[in-house]
Amino acid sequence: MRPTIAIAFCLCVGSLVLAPRAAAQTRTLAERLGYPADAKLLIVHADDLGMSHSVNLATIKAFESGLVNSGSIMVPCPWFFEIATYARGNPQADLGLHLTLTSEWTAFRWGPVTSKDRVSSLLDKNGYFYLTESDAAAKADVKEVEMEIRAQVERARAFGIQPTHLDSHMGTLYQSKALFEVFLKVAREYKLPVRVAKTWFSQADFLPSTLSPDDVFIDRTLDINPAVAPEDWAKFYTEALKKLEPGVTEVIIHLAYDDAEMRGATFDHPNWGAAWRQRDLEFFTSDAFRQLLRDEKIKLITWRELGKLLQK
Amino acid sequence: MRPTIAIAFCLCVGSLVLAPRAAAQTRTLAERLGYPADAKLLIVHADDLGMSHSVNLATIKAFESGLVNSGSIMVPCPWFFEIATYARGNPQADLGLHLTLTSEWTAFRWGPVTSKDRVSSLLDKNGYFYLTESDAAAKADVKEVEMEIRAQVERARAFGIQPTHLDSHMGTLYQSKALFEVFLKVAREYKLPVRVAKTWFSQADFLPSTLSPDDVFIDRTLDINPAVAPEDWAKFYTEALKKLEPGVTEVIIHLAYDDAEMRGATFDHPNWGAAWRQRDLEFFTSDAFRQLLRDEKIKLITWRELGKLLQK
Repeated sequence: MRPTIAIAFCLCVGSLVLAPRAAAQTRTLAERLGYPADAKLLIVHADDLGMSHSVNLATIKAFESGLVNSGSIMVPCPWFFEIATYARGNPQADLGLHLTLTSEWTAFRWGPVTSKDRVSSLLDKNGYFYLTESDAAAKADVKEVEMEIRAQVERARAFGIQPTHLDSHMGTLYQSKALFEVFLKVAREYKLPVRVAKTWFSQADFLPSTLSPDDVFIDRTLDINPAVAPEDWAKFYTEALKKLEPGVTEVIIHLAYDDAEMRGATFDHPNWGAAWRQRDLEFFTSDAFRQLLRDEKIKLITWRELGKLLQK
Repeated sequence: MRPTIAIAFCLCVGSLVLAPRAAAQTRTLAERLGYPADAKLLIVHADDLGMSHSVNLATIKAFESGLVNSGSIMVPCPWFFEIATYARGNPQADLGLHLTLTSEWTAFRWGPVTSKDRVSSLLDKNGYFYLTESDAAAKADVKEVEMEIRAQVERARAFGIQPTHLDSHMGTLYQSKALFEVFLKVAREYKLPVRVAKTWFSQADFLPSTLSPDDVFIDRTLDINPAVAPEDWAKFYTEALKKLEPGVTEVIIHLAYDDAEMRGATFDHPNWGAAWRQRDLEFFTSDAFRQLLRDEKIKLITWRELGKLLQK
């Protein structure tokens, strides 16, 4: 997910309605996971794996640091095969699927896993996914969305990937109740947790009303945004982590090198662009971040742990 | 076309049968183009445009030198949109289509323009084009090949590209008479010349018997091969160009930077790999090559000039 989208989404959708079904759990998620209620639990999650070679290399390097411990894969993208090979070779890695219904870089495009004739509502006039999540959501036939996201899960499984969770590239699957319902339906069938945070409920009332007490949803997500100046990158994350509240937080980051490939892909979009991703890479593989985790008694957990709650 | 394939193809197919139809032209191609029969005419042709950002950037740089004056585009590839934008902005550029039925890099893949359900014979078990031209040719249904190559031409035209010629990535469309026939059929309908050289006739008897006197075919192609040591790159091309015979020659080159993206794509395939392509780029944009053209009185021509013969 590119957080621009999450922000746009958060600003424009509904008001808080906490549904009884989702609120029925009395124990906190931390407690359900076996931690004290006041534990500060963090998933450090890299999005967009498989998109480009640069994203793949940077994310694998970050995984090797031990400080980035989760990520999600874009099955329709050109470099999927590379990250699928990594996933097969590293079955312990906490890798989910970044279900993809958009193709946002103007010079570098991709389209569906499903045969195009069968998912024409997902395609722009050039036969690629739409550039934006709003266009994708506005045009998408929900049955075709279901077909495509199932195809992405099945293709990942066919490649030997056992995903630990599902999320949605650019937040397309949170753009409406109908899209979220089909997302949750597929996730439940595969017994996989989806990226949903309690802090999102106030922005989209269909979230709590669609979730059930048996679903797993985290307490909050944390992501940086274009208002932060490049020189304040480390400061933003450091302050946010120093103020981290108890419970389960997912920090959503975007890793790549600031290299020719990423500059080419993101040339007209500096937000979530090449330099942005290199800054994320540098902070989240730094000794300063490692020390911060120690100082603030933040424990890293994974979606795999959360998923086990669904399999009980 | 990756010349490994051309070589393999050249070594294994048939013996010389010069058909009367193709041999009926009495004037040389150089003469038909308005040059003396002894003119040394050269097309400096970069393959694989659209495959990667690195290929696109390097080829555009080479075009700007004026020393590389032709190229062909892979419509199904992830970076097609980038090179299509260049083509629209540079309508004088001599750009053809590198019709693509293979996806040869193991970590970085692509598939058809046509809806997958309609061209299943072109796809491997993962839904991409086959890795090799021999697999592609062995499995391909010719009707599906026709559908896909027409779709590639039509997509290019829809993007505003007016191709000046057609050729075949990895030589797949020269692997059998049936494939070549459908290739030529489509090319004739669009009144576009295809890459065929007289020197290939001795290796594939279906070529001259399929061509007619109205078709345009060049005298020879020139390409480097893995037997040439990296340090002998400039020497190989220099000697070949010093010995260049009169008539129309196409030197087929492969341009890219030896950068992370290309190393990632070609990591298990040094032939036609990242360093190979950087060597081609360096030689064909060098002052030494420019001087060689002057010294040897070699004139650069384009496929656009050849195509005009078909439109008379």
